[in-house]
Amino acid sequence: MATAKVVVLLVALVAVVGSCGAWELKIRMPTAREVEAAAERLEEDVAAPLIHALRPLLGSGGQLGRRAGVPCDSWRLAVEAYNKRDWKTVPTNCEGYVGHYMLGGHYRRDSRVVVDEAIAYAESLKLAGNGKEVWVFDIDETSLSNLPYYAAHGFGTKPYNATSFNEYVLEGSAPVLPETQRLFRKLISLGIKPVFLTGRREDQRAISVANLRRQGYSGWLKLLLKPVGFKATAIAYKSGERQKLQDAGYVIVGNIGDQWSDILGAPEGARTFKLPDPLYYIG
Amino acid sequence: MATAKVVVLLVALVAVVGSCGAWELKIRMPTAREVEAAAERLEEDVAAPLIHALRPLLGSGGQLGRRAGVPCDSWRLAVEAYNKRDWKTVPTNCEGYVGHYMLGGHYRRDSRVVVDEAIAYAESLKLAGNGKEVWVFDIDETSLSNLPYYAAHGFGTKPYNATSFNEYVLEGSAPVLPETQRLFRKLISLGIKPVFLTGRREDQRAISVANLRRQGYSGWLKLLLKPVGFKATAIAYKSGERQKLQDAGYVIVGNIGDQWSDILGAPEGARTFKLPDPLYYIG
Repeated sequence: MATAKVVVLLVALVAVVGSCGAWELKIRMPTAREVEAAAERLEEDVAAPLIHALRPLLGSGGQLGRRAGVPCDSWRLAVEAYNKRDWKTVPTNCEGYVGHYMLGGHYRRDSRVVVDEAIAYAESLKLAGNGKEVWVFDIDETSLSNLPYYAAHGFGTKPYNATSFNEYVLEGSAPVLPETQRLFRKLISLGIKPVFLTGRREDQRAISVANLRRQGYSGWLKLLLKPVGFKATAIAYKSGERQKLQDAGYVIVGNIGDQWSDILGAPEGARTFKLPDPLYYIG
Repeated sequence: MATAKVVVLLVALVAVVGSCGAWELKIRMPTAREVEAAAERLEEDVAAPLIHALRPLLGSGGQLGRRAGVPCDSWRLAVEAYNKRDWKTVPTNCEGYVGHYMLGGHYRRDSRVVVDEAIAYAESLKLAGNGKEVWVFDIDETSLSNLPYYAAHGFGTKPYNATSFNEYVLEGSAPVLPETQRLFRKLISLGIKPVFLTGRREDQRAISVANLRRQGYSGWLKLLLKPVGFKATAIAYKSGERQKLQDAGYVIVGNIGDQWSDILGAPEGARTFKLPDPLYYIG
């Protein structure tokens, strides 16, 4: 559909200027940034139907009364603004949209703006400098990316498969999210200590440490993993761990994650940041 | 820049297919939905520079180290996900983007998805049916739209002017937000009573009631306005009013607004919904 849009745009614009040859008259040399942006759009708009072609558009937006399914950009916004909750999978018709959002420049651009806000906030803090000021980092889709796994499993359109996902985690090959690492290193340089707080289980500690180190992370204060067999919601588990940090005398000046369940539940931390994640929902 | 993108797309695509004439070979009849979508993009992509032309791109994304300013779609996402807070004005380079987001189909589409979620939630409720179940509605940019004012004042790129904005409010001419009205009417049909809770002042009650009625609202339980001269943050004021509702025996099953300050602060309501608003921030 994206290419069709471009085609229709062409038809409409050609109609406006009268003839194909007249196009040249309209063309000026684009700036470097415009070329970069256009290249992204070209990749996203032109390549999207190729991924779409892999799977018919079954549609999943019945509640919208639209045969073609939910509008994917509006669905993603509803997810990021916490309007859409407790969803199980990405709408089938949005696989191509989410794939190209994640693989193209859009996800990186959105993440960079969040991290720029976080760094501006951190730099504005008057620190006690007593070594008690900490910043909580989630791991998956925050410090490390599982995009290689999700790209091979329908970009969130398929139900979560704990077995295959844990096999992937145990490879310890998850790539870094560069924006988050930029924040991580800035905080250390400011004297704020990073604390990893993750839903990964204690029996995944060794591979998680190896993966984090391989990807260039070092200097964290703690790595808090969920006890094996621990039963609780992510919000209950993570807010409980943050409470323990406070009880131990730490001051949580910031908290960043890709899920609302990373940053909801007192004590949240003095300031929270929500990184984009259209791949899955953890309540 | 948007048109330049399309131009660059053209150049790139023409390069791919070799000649302008070859274009016709690529063209197929688009579906009705594609035409509608393309018309929207045509309006947004082609018309945007006309608004841009009204004001030079001074840029405002220094913190991003980008001469052309912050990427406007990422800025809007950061606002909606509550990563960007306490901002005074829309980045100057985003006036065209925000204008066409609001005037084109995008804002309506995003709002509809939020309201579809709210209605699905409301229909899923097991109601006591004792007349005590209420839903809190904000007014500005939630029940009524001040877009006519903001379209004439730089789409949020100019500092807030209380004098001219209040003159506009006193006209009582703000149009309805149709998606919100659809929720409002659905709730009444379900037996959930709407309560308006607004930062508008008590001395604007008469014109607010007239405007709401003119736009087709009726059947609300209460219209709560801020006492003249009342000094408090929006969060403190609105959470205090919601507390009074609870103390009076009402059950706030839902709460919808365009600002995070509408839906933060206990008691928030059993479920909250954040409508899009890239025009202004109220803390």
